[in-house]
Amino acid sequence: MDKATLIQTHRRIKPFIHKTPVLTSQLLDDIAGCSLYFKCENFQKMGAFKMRGAANAIASLTHEEREKGVVTHSSGNFAQAVALAARRLNVKAYIVMPENAPQVKKEAVRAYQGEIIECASTAEAREETAERIKNETGATFLHPSNQDEVILGNSTAAIELLQERPDLDIILAPVGGGGLIAGTALAAHYFGNDCKVIGGEPFEADDAYRSLQSGKIERNTTTNTVADGLRTYLGDRNFPIIQKYVDRIIRVDEEEIISAMKLIWERMKIIIEPSCAVPFAAVLREKEKFKSKKIGIILSGGNVDVTKLPF
Amino acid sequence: MDKATLIQTHRRIKPFIHKTPVLTSQLLDDIAGCSLYFKCENFQKMGAFKMRGAANAIASLTHEEREKGVVTHSSGNFAQAVALAARRLNVKAYIVMPENAPQVKKEAVRAYQGEIIECASTAEAREETAERIKNETGATFLHPSNQDEVILGNSTAAIELLQERPDLDIILAPVGGGGLIAGTALAAHYFGNDCKVIGGEPFEADDAYRSLQSGKIERNTTTNTVADGLRTYLGDRNFPIIQKYVDRIIRVDEEEIISAMKLIWERMKIIIEPSCAVPFAAVLREKEKFKSKKIGIILSGGNVDVTKLPF
Repeated sequence: MDKATLIQTHRRIKPFIHKTPVLTSQLLDDIAGCSLYFKCENFQKMGAFKMRGAANAIASLTHEEREKGVVTHSSGNFAQAVALAARRLNVKAYIVMPENAPQVKKEAVRAYQGEIIECASTAEAREETAERIKNETGATFLHPSNQDEVILGNSTAAIELLQERPDLDIILAPVGGGGLIAGTALAAHYFGNDCKVIGGEPFEADDAYRSLQSGKIERNTTTNTVADGLRTYLGDRNFPIIQKYVDRIIRVDEEEIISAMKLIWERMKIIIEPSCAVPFAAVLREKEKFKSKKIGIILSGGNVDVTKLPF
Repeated sequence: MDKATLIQTHRRIKPFIHKTPVLTSQLLDDIAGCSLYFKCENFQKMGAFKMRGAANAIASLTHEEREKGVVTHSSGNFAQAVALAARRLNVKAYIVMPENAPQVKKEAVRAYQGEIIECASTAEAREETAERIKNETGATFLHPSNQDEVILGNSTAAIELLQERPDLDIILAPVGGGGLIAGTALAAHYFGNDCKVIGGEPFEADDAYRSLQSGKIERNTTTNTVADGLRTYLGDRNFPIIQKYVDRIIRVDEEEIISAMKLIWERMKIIIEPSCAVPFAAVLREKEKFKSKKIGIILSGGNVDVTKLPF
């Protein structure tokens, strides 16, 4: 994954993604004591950065592979991203979802013409069902975070951010499955000017923080966090990148996440997911360390049920 | 209020306002069956278009007038707009607010260093108190909607929209006190290419609709609408402009307002006030009349209590 590959990736997916805006807020700068540049992936197609990785993974398939389709298991943003990217590229998408997944999520996938295959609501059932579809149809399995093409696709958000603000001192991104932070770290390494990358993670799902300490992929026993996109754990493709290029991970508590989310809603007038507020919460938690710096923040997505808010 | 005055107004207030973005949404275009261009005044300084009128009114004062300050009575966006614009222009702002105004509104005015004068919660008390302050201090009274400088300032949102999209067939704006729709109509008249202006109003506060029918300024006896910014009535400065340049007013019911607001939140990932959703609700109500047209919509503001949503 060298610089040329990242450039090629960006060129490959450009027809399928929005170049999202970078927003600033004087009020939030005053509160945080630094200059904040928010890369708004909540305005991305289907509402999250996941579109970038999904588009790259599907656009990288051979003609033969495309004819057999793609399969993934997800009940979140990646399911929608795969369904939409597949439709745009004229590829069949099989989406394995737990039978108790929220109706609204199933409808979103159907709206993008993804074929939903329901299964029991356990990790094993999801993996087995995806494996069965793969064997039956020859479809290519796409992983939401632990796959090179997905990591490369995700890197393009930070590439665009650095093209617009090449002078950033630090970029922060949330850490869930590790695909976004790994892509962001690659982009900062190749396109930044000595730009550090810091992850934000809830205390209630701090597997990545612990993984960096122990040197092996740790899991969470419980994940009682409002940041529902960050409950997953790292994988063998993204962990080495994170170890090599991510400066550190800052953990935040639930109250900090909710209050950071509310601040962004109220002051910036934009809708972001709870997971998305974690890096900003991290900046507020360690204000003195970010003082007067130029900080990029990847706002990862805006798919939230507006009738069920945590405030 | 000729074209030159509008151009001069825009030049005058540029240092004090944001040039807000014009956003589009493929999903909403598909739903509405036309091409929608949303002028995002919810991203304006202090969160609403009111900043434009307030900035123009204060920047138009003489040196002597500025020294004596400005006074207004408002518990809404105009109070914040006057306080912020006055601070930027180094002018003292007296804001008359009912004693039972929400604490959050008072805090916003104080944050912009406006001086709050509390009074009883009746229209008479507010007017009397403002009159008293005016007499005691020599401050200039600013009206939220029925004043030429305010109408001219408001016109600049549509001027910017038409500079970006000169080919619009129609621009829609909500109708409250009439200051925004009057300014929008002036801008469309001078800067549009045969561009119509249509107002959106709740059935529950349809004074402007009735005023256009009767030919005189009508009031509302009740205003049971979620669109709290639209409960006021027209004034003698803006009504003639509205009569002359506004094509018509479309009324919408409460359910339509709430559902249009929710659609914009969910699909565009931006926060708008209920009042702000009224023009989009009007487009959805009369879909067939807007079919395939290029429609500008002034999203008037985003100051909403995110803990008290109507959905």
